[in-house]
Amino acid sequence: MLSFETILNQIENGISNLKYDHPPTNLDHPPTNLYEPIRYILSLEGKRIRPALTFMAFNLYKENTASCMQPALALEVFHNFTLLHDDLMDQADIRRHKPTIHKVWSPNTAILSGDAMLISAYQLIAQTPEKYLKEILDLFSTTALEICEGQQYDMEFEGREDVDEKEYIEMIRLKTAVLLACALKMGAILADAPQADQENMYQFGINIGLAFQLQDDLLDVYGDSATFGKKIGGDILTNKKTFLLINALKKASEPERKMLTDWQHRKEFIPEEKIRIFTEIYNQNKIKETTIQKIEEFYLKAMSHLSGLSVAPKKLSVLISVTNQLMNRQS
Amino acid sequence: MLSFETILNQIENGISNLKYDHPPTNLDHPPTNLYEPIRYILSLEGKRIRPALTFMAFNLYKENTASCMQPALALEVFHNFTLLHDDLMDQADIRRHKPTIHKVWSPNTAILSGDAMLISAYQLIAQTPEKYLKEILDLFSTTALEICEGQQYDMEFEGREDVDEKEYIEMIRLKTAVLLACALKMGAILADAPQADQENMYQFGINIGLAFQLQDDLLDVYGDSATFGKKIGGDILTNKKTFLLINALKKASEPERKMLTDWQHRKEFIPEEKIRIFTEIYNQNKIKETTIQKIEEFYLKAMSHLSGLSVAPKKLSVLISVTNQLMNRQS
Repeated sequence: MLSFETILNQIENGISNLKYDHPPTNLDHPPTNLYEPIRYILSLEGKRIRPALTFMAFNLYKENTASCMQPALALEVFHNFTLLHDDLMDQADIRRHKPTIHKVWSPNTAILSGDAMLISAYQLIAQTPEKYLKEILDLFSTTALEICEGQQYDMEFEGREDVDEKEYIEMIRLKTAVLLACALKMGAILADAPQADQENMYQFGINIGLAFQLQDDLLDVYGDSATFGKKIGGDILTNKKTFLLINALKKASEPERKMLTDWQHRKEFIPEEKIRIFTEIYNQNKIKETTIQKIEEFYLKAMSHLSGLSVAPKKLSVLISVTNQLMNRQS
Repeated sequence: MLSFETILNQIENGISNLKYDHPPTNLDHPPTNLYEPIRYILSLEGKRIRPALTFMAFNLYKENTASCMQPALALEVFHNFTLLHDDLMDQADIRRHKPTIHKVWSPNTAILSGDAMLISAYQLIAQTPEKYLKEILDLFSTTALEICEGQQYDMEFEGREDVDEKEYIEMIRLKTAVLLACALKMGAILADAPQADQENMYQFGINIGLAFQLQDDLLDVYGDSATFGKKIGGDILTNKKTFLLINALKKASEPERKMLTDWQHRKEFIPEEKIRIFTEIYNQNKIKETTIQKIEEFYLKAMSHLSGLSVAPKKLSVLISVTNQLMNRQS
């Protein structure tokens, strides 16, 4: 079996072999401003977790991972396409410590290079061995459309104050979890894993994806800014409807709820004060504990799907250790 | 053989059967603002020329057109996706006499619904009979990427004054002609047409597409506003580098060239005067004749590819009559 490091090396190699610089038939200069942003965003340090999941899932059943390289890269290109368009829609200036594409180039470049990336992801999917092509293509498209739905709900929730936990979980399932699930299932499909394993792999991905996202929500408030990588309290300052806020609004006393709502509407405030007030109300209502409990729930559900696989438990060690590493990235 | 009218009816039926309203697994309300714009743009009166080309090409070889419905619809959905994103990039307010999506909804909706349309086009491609899937998928992706390249060149040319005819022809080949060529070739592939016919069909599409676009450039200046559907002189007012302007800049005397350049830089002017001056210089340099000659050239080349097909000439009547109708839409 391949180590996680070997897998990441193979993926980085694959990414650097992607060519985005061919001139069209009748001209000698390629449309540089179309392809340069694609190279730029792919060269930023990503965790490459999605293609790695495909490799790891595949590797549970088969050794020669050559056949999953192109579909796995498709997921990385697709993921970066979503970041590119989401950053434009959210007007985010920074991604992975670098200015975003619409800042370096322009909004139009971000739109068009994003479109080209999505098409390019499909070109990589098309290199799937033909026996699996239809199935992988359908899985990929369904997932891609779900991610658009997730982003749509996310944007709609910004303007709503009555988002409930069920809606929120469905939104993050669509926006985040399905792509991890798709990556894992793809690996299983390409390795001819039994149908039941494919489904368990998918559900492992969904539940681990939900756990990751809630972990992210939690770290935004309770993380260590030195290791979190983002500033603490970002979600609070932008009134993001996180799992924490939704639960706080449900559990808080009437005066606390009024306070949360009032602070969400304030246009001018001292950031530290808003963060302090929200955190105090979260503490008062044990929101940290509620969130940790929910994360634990998803994590255990994920693990039960993993143990439902037909592979020898010791083979799962790479997948489990990577998962745990990602779950405990605070430490 | 099917009449053009029957083909258009089948396509309209196919389009109205496309469903963009399913709720995701765990919620009962679909992401309306994602799918409503897709229904909106597909309901505007389009000519449906691309899917019709697929049907007509297919119908030269086979009768039962059922197998080309989904890939043909994919081209119509894809084409409307490009209009959606292009209108946003070009800040166009009106499309087919109706306000554009980013005007009715928002720029973010235009981005995200466009992305969903592109994915949806691939879902239709995926319904191609499996025997042809890989080939159709590759043709479609190559074409889609070329169209992005065409749009990129188009945007880049706006800021340049030295665009030459060769570059311009390549830009419109990418932006406009390849999708017609792809539509025709798809029909031929799905009907098991001989390889040589597939290539002739593609080249017919390229040349007829170039002829259409130059015709469009010509009508912008010399068309009858009552039948053209757009206001005369639009390209002149927006300094579009059309075939006419590029040739005028090449052929004009030094004072005329200075006049064209000077008027392109003016910020304030009476529209009618600018149109009059450009038209006079075009007239002086016989730009209308040059353009008609070039259109004729592409048209004849297209026809020679058509006559290179292995099908009985009388079968070509529908395709030729539709082409001629589109070429002479002024009358």
